[in-house]
Amino acid sequence: MKFNNRNIHISSSAKMGSNVKIGDNTVIYDNVEIGDNTIIANNCVIGEPINDYYHNKDYQNPVTKIGKNSLIRSHAIIYAGVDIGDEFSSGHRITIRENSKFGKAGKVGTLSDIQGYTIFGDYCWLHSNVHITQNCTIGNYVFIYPYVVFTSDPHPPSNVSIGPTIGDYTQIATGAILLPGVQIGKHVLIGAGSVVRYRAKDFDLIMGNPAKRLCDVREIKSKNNPDKSYYPWPYNFDRGMPWEGKSYDEWLNEQS
Amino acid sequence: MKFNNRNIHISSSAKMGSNVKIGDNTVIYDNVEIGDNTIIANNCVIGEPINDYYHNKDYQNPVTKIGKNSLIRSHAIIYAGVDIGDEFSSGHRITIRENSKFGKAGKVGTLSDIQGYTIFGDYCWLHSNVHITQNCTIGNYVFIYPYVVFTSDPHPPSNVSIGPTIGDYTQIATGAILLPGVQIGKHVLIGAGSVVRYRAKDFDLIMGNPAKRLCDVREIKSKNNPDKSYYPWPYNFDRGMPWEGKSYDEWLNEQS
Amino acid sequence: MKFNNRNIHISSSAKMGSNVKIGDNTVIYDNVEIGDNTIIANNCVIGEPINDYYHNKDYQNPVTKIGKNSLIRSHAIIYAGVDIGDEFSSGHRITIRENSKFGKAGKVGTLSDIQGYTIFGDYCWLHSNVHITQNCTIGNYVFIYPYVVFTSDPHPPSNVSIGPTIGDYTQIATGAILLPGVQIGKHVLIGAGSVVRYRAKDFDLIMGNPAKRLCDVREIKSKNNPDKSYYPWPYNFDRGMPWEGKSYDEWLNEQS
Repeated sequence: MKFNNRNIHISSSAKMGSNVKIGDNTVIYDNVEIGDNTIIANNCVIGEPINDYYHNKDYQNPVTKIGKNSLIRSHAIIYAGVDIGDEFSSGHRITIRENSKFGKAGKVGTLSDIQGYTIFGDYCWLHSNVHITQNCTIGNYVFIYPYVVFTSDPHPPSNVSIGPTIGDYTQIATGAILLPGVQIGKHVLIGAGSVVRYRAKDFDLIMGNPAKRLCDVREIKSKNNPDKSYYPWPYNFDRGMPWEGKSYDEWLNEQS
Repeated sequence: MKFNNRNIHISSSAKMGSNVKIGDNTVIYDNVEIGDNTIIANNCVIGEPINDYYHNKDYQNPVTKIGKNSLIRSHAIIYAGVDIGDEFSSGHRITIRENSKFGKAGKVGTLSDIQGYTIFGDYCWLHSNVHITQNCTIGNYVFIYPYVVFTSDPHPPSNVSIGPTIGDYTQIATGAILLPGVQIGKHVLIGAGSVVRYRAKDFDLIMGNPAKRLCDVREIKSKNNPDKSYYPWPYNFDRGMPWEGKSYDEWLNEQS
Repeated sequence: MKFNNRNIHISSSAKMGSNVKIGDNTVIYDNVEIGDNTIIANNCVIGEPINDYYHNKDYQNPVTKIGKNSLIRSHAIIYAGVDIGDEFSSGHRITIRENSKFGKAGKVGTLSDIQGYTIFGDYCWLHSNVHITQNCTIGNYVFIYPYVVFTSDPHPPSNVSIGPTIGDYTQIATGAILLPGVQIGKHVLIGAGSVVRYRAKDFDLIMGNPAKRLCDVREIKSKNNPDKSYYPWPYNFDRGMPWEGKSYDEWLNEQS
C-alpha cells in the first residue's frame, strides 16, 4: 500500500543507507544522511532549509542525520542541521528545527514541536504535542507527556533565551509548564498541570501552580502493590529500555 | 476549485458510496468503506496502516468505515480500524488512530488527536486540539473544548492504561486535564483549566487544580436571564441535536 | 532546493505580485491576491473555500489578501476571506480561518489556529500553538506565547460568542487561558498557566487560577539589572518593532 514512489523527490547529494524506504509525496533535501533500514513515511520533509536559505544566495544546506533502524511517521518536518540517533521513532506531524540532537532510541509523539538548539540524551520519550523551546539540556531516560511546554524567555519579550535543564530519569506529566531556566534534578516527578517556577532536587515529587515539593518520589506507593514503592521507576518499567529483560540493578552493575 | 482528481490514489479494495468526493493529494488505503454523499477533502490519508504493517509481511489492512453524509476536512490522518458513524464532520489535520469508534453526528476539531481504543457515543463534539488517550469511555452528547487532555497512565511510566469515563451530556471546558481512570458522571460541567484527580457525580460543577465541587450545575443562572438556570443545557441549546426544533422534554418523551 | 514548480496549482483568477515564489505541492484558490516579494512555501493551501462552498452551487470564493514581503512557511491553511498585511511571517502548519485580519508585520507560529472573525492590530506576534477563538479584538504590539487559548462561550454549549479584548503592548505568557469576553488593558502581563476570569487594568501583572493582580508591571525589576524596571517592555526590546534603532520615547514623539 505505502511506498509507491509517487511524487517523491530526493536530492542527489542525499546519502541513503541500505534498505531505506521513503513514502509517497516526501522530499529529502540536500545533504541529508539516512541510516540503514530506516523508514521515512509519506508526506515528510527532511532537511528543510533553515531561515538563511531565503536570504543568502550562497546558502548550503547543513548536514542532517537520521540514524539507522528508525521510523518517522507521516507529515514530519525535520530541519537541516538536525542529528537524530539510531532507533528513533516518531508519531505524525512532528516539527524538529535546526541544531536539535537526539541520542539513541528517542521518541517524539504526534504534533510535537522542537524549536532547536537543544540536546536530548538517550532514550528520551516525548509524547504527543510537546513543545520544547530553544537552549534546553535534557538528560537520558527523560519522559515528557502530552502538552508539556518548556519556556525560555524570563522577561517576555526579550532577547534572552535560557531553557530548562532536566536530569536523567525525570518524568514530566501532562500539561506541565516549565519556566525559563528551571533546574530539575534526576528521578524527579512533575505532576500534571504544574507550573514549575523553582528548581527541583533529585527524587522530588513537585506539583501545583506554582509547583511545590510534596514528598520524595520513593514514598509513592504502587497502586497495585501498596507495600512497594513505584519509584525509582526503572525497577518497575523496562519496555524499550536498555535494562529490558534483566533487572535494573544488574544493568546498572554492567555500566559501572 | 477543489476536487480536481489530481494526485489522488484510491485502493482497488476500497468501497466508495455514491456521490462521494475525494480531494486532491488524498490517499485511500485498502479496505476503506466510505458512505454515500461523504466528502473527504484534500491531502487526507484514510485507512493509514497500523504499526504491524511495518513488521509483518502478511499484513492485511483492517476495515475502516466512514459513514454517509460526512465531511472530513483537509490533512486528516484516519487509521485503519476506525469506525465513524454517519453525519460526522471534522476540522483540519485531525489524527484518529485504530480502534476508535464514533457514533452518529460526531465532530472532531482541527488538530485533535485521538489515540485509539476508545468508543465515543452519539453527538460527541470535540473542538480544536483535544487529546484523547487510549481506553476511554465517552457517553452521548459530550462536548470537549480546546486543549483538553485525557490521560491514562497512573504511574508514569508504566504499562497500565486506564482512561477516564465520561457520562452523557457532560461538558469539559478548555484546557482541563483528566487524570487516569477518573469517573465523571452525567451533566457534569468541568471548568476551564481544571486538573481533575477525583470523580465527579451527576450534575456537579467542578473546577480548579485539583478540581473541587463548587455547586450543582442547576444552580448556575443564565447570564442573559438571571431568573433561570442555564443547565441542564439541553433546555437551552438544540443546534445540531436530535431535539432541534422541538422541546427537549418532548424529545425525551419520544425516546421513552 | 525549494521552489521547483512541482504539483503546484494556481487559480487563473489569483493575482500574483512580482517576485512571488510558490513552493511545491501548494495550491492557490480563486481570488487570492499575493503582494510583491512574498514567499509561500511548500504544501500550503491559500484561499481555502469557506463552508458555504460545500452547499452552494453558486459559491464565489471571497477575496484573500496576503501582503508584500511576507513569508508563509510550509503546510499553512489560510481560508478565503483572510486579509493579511505586509511583512507577515509564519511558522509551519498554521490555520487561519475566514474573516481574520492582520495588520502590519504580524507573526503566527507553528500549529497556531486562528478561528476567524478577529482583527489583529499591527506587530502582533503569536508563537507556536496559540488558539484564538472567534470575535476577539486584539490591539497592536500584542505578544501571545505558546499554548495560550482564548475562549468565547460563556455557557458551554451556547450560541453566544464573545471573545476577549486585548490592549496594546500586552504580553500573554505560555499556557494562559482567557475566558469569554474578558477585558484586558494595555501593557498587561499575564503569567504562564493563568486562567483569566476577570478584567485586568492597564499595567497589571496578573497570575494564577483564577488569575489575580500581583502588582504593577512597572515594579518588576530587570533580572540583569535590579536597579531598573523591565516594563514597559518597549524601553528594553526593539527587535522588529517600528522603534528599532532609536529610543522608544523618540519614536513615540514622532507618532504624536
